[in-house]
Amino acid sequence: MKKFIVGVMGGGEGASKEVCELAYELGKLIAKEGWVLLNGGRQVGVMEASARGAKEHGGITVGILPDRNTELASSYIDIPIITGMGDGRNFLNVMSSDVVVALPGRAGTISEIALALKNGKIVILLNFPIGDIFIEHKQAKMLIPVAEPKDVIEEIKNIFGFRAE
Amino acid sequence: MKKFIVGVMGGGEGASKEVCELAYELGKLIAKEGWVLLNGGRQVGVMEASARGAKEHGGITVGILPDRNTELASSYIDIPIITGMGDGRNFLNVMSSDVVVALPGRAGTISEIALALKNGKIVILLNFPIGDIFIEHKQAKMLIPVAEPKDVIEEIKNIFGFRAE
Amino acid sequence: MKKFIVGVMGGGEGASKEVCELAYELGKLIAKEGWVLLNGGRQVGVMEASARGAKEHGGITVGILPDRNTELASSYIDIPIITGMGDGRNFLNVMSSDVVVALPGRAGTISEIALALKNGKIVILLNFPIGDIFIEHKQAKMLIPVAEPKDVIEEIKNIFGFRAE
Amino acid sequence: MKKFIVGVMGGGEGASKEVCELAYELGKLIAKEGWVLLNGGRQVGVMEASARGAKEHGGITVGILPDRNTELASSYIDIPIITGMGDGRNFLNVMSSDVVVALPGRAGTISEIALALKNGKIVILLNFPIGDIFIEHKQAKMLIPVAEPKDVIEEIKNIFGFRAE
Repeated sequence: MKKFIVGVMGGGEGASKEVCELAYELGKLIAKEGWVLLNGGRQVGVMEASARGAKEHGGITVGILPDRNTELASSYIDIPIITGMGDGRNFLNVMSSDVVVALPGRAGTISEIALALKNGKIVILLNFPIGDIFIEHKQAKMLIPVAEPKDVIEEIKNIFGFRAE
Repeated sequence: MKKFIVGVMGGGEGASKEVCELAYELGKLIAKEGWVLLNGGRQVGVMEASARGAKEHGGITVGILPDRNTELASSYIDIPIITGMGDGRNFLNVMSSDVVVALPGRAGTISEIALALKNGKIVILLNFPIGDIFIEHKQAKMLIPVAEPKDVIEEIKNIFGFRAE
Repeated sequence: MKKFIVGVMGGGEGASKEVCELAYELGKLIAKEGWVLLNGGRQVGVMEASARGAKEHGGITVGILPDRNTELASSYIDIPIITGMGDGRNFLNVMSSDVVVALPGRAGTISEIALALKNGKIVILLNFPIGDIFIEHKQAKMLIPVAEPKDVIEEIKNIFGFRAE
Repeated sequence: MKKFIVGVMGGGEGASKEVCELAYELGKLIAKEGWVLLNGGRQVGVMEASARGAKEHGGITVGILPDRNTELASSYIDIPIITGMGDGRNFLNVMSSDVVVALPGRAGTISEIALALKNGKIVILLNFPIGDIFIEHKQAKMLIPVAEPKDVIEEIKNIFGFRAE
């Protein structure tokens, strides 16, 4: 009965309006597929926007919080997981996702991409050019750059062999 | 939109048939209230039985796995959280629960009761006599012994002021 | 070149003067054996007293802090490990110890005893009567009650086959 | 009494002979300063080489292991910290270091650089060109590229105002 879980990573407080719009649209599309959206759970940036996109379209949202309570949690998160681990929770974010999508972000997001790739998770980069730092993963098709939210969905369907669900 | 989350702890491989029946019944009642059931996610003992009880009655189940993959996960878990932390995940189990219910278990379950009480979570003991080790928490009504699954539900409704949901 | 590491657990802010004196004496004896003392690293209770006992007698001290910095660390800790995990670090405390000694404490200390026993670590109870909650571990000689700090050292030497070091 | 702790990160099994020689030399220089060397604790690559360099020159070594026991630990580690957290321990590696040095590595090392920068730790890159991915941290002098082990020591002395110790 395990749900298919898509991890959505990206900038927090510093995320631009454009990036948040992408995140919202991605959350919406994930919800429409019936997939669970998982993110870092906070009420800012890509976390807030992607969760809102999913919840406003009937999705289920899981937030892996760095905090010891839900005070800073997004109100669009159904199921907050309280880790109390700070950025140590980034490892849980990616391990708990069947596939990871990374939108533009900074060091926190890079750490999640790196931890995902290190542990054999496929990472889809949504409009997030990060140079050649993970060139070998790109060549091995573990790191896949795409331009739009709908491309993310298409890639996931191709990779995991979904037709509809 | 946060769901109300009930953590269900108790014995793993060593759990008796009677304890598993209690766990199944508790899972069923939690599901019927529309609450999310959270446990340690494995396919044994109280974890398996409580998740099955919930899923066979329309509930949502979250399993906080100690492992680095889902190989040992219960098939009745909707949302497995992969911590890769071994019993370090026991802390996450209780922190992520609005209230913790403990069925008979051994050292792992005791660790969860202790971590919950240490961090201000109310623990309901379901047919699990543990002596006076946490006597001060019992006196402060943070540790509440009950005899049957339906009593757990009643206690939770009293404590959290639910009428129906 | 691995050092022999003795984990010392017990009460924090609530620890009595008598318990802290026991902890100090134990820290002193551990240092005199040339063993490393490991504890939770904070500047209170058994943590502070045991680290002080060790440092004032030439020992090495490791503190596994729950915090994200060293602000609350004991000044008698040589090597603070910053986990940022809250009480999630209790698991690391016991796993990193070759043997665990528990002095009187409350729920936090009980959680460490439970996590240690669950994971096959021997626990020596120093003047800490905890009833029969772990009776089967006591029968299996995994849980060993003693009355004085010197008894702890003697038990460790017997168990691990030390002569002097 | 807190020791000054230098975290040394870099490639594991895939590390080249040249990188391991750099790591050995760095470990040696850290030991000569009287600083503690902290790394990921395993018996491969930069971990093994840096720990050996330190131990063969009188240093103290701490290894934060991803494992649940010491089976894969380097024999040059004095104090193994058993996290059982897999790569979740990367966060602890950098948080427990006063300063982080990164030698060439792959995704695991990149995750450590990212987690360190995210959490305000200075990272010295030893002969590890990683492009412009953390350009803003480089501009803020939080990310400092150097060419040789002796430059690492000099940078640390400048940053932390050491004369000798």
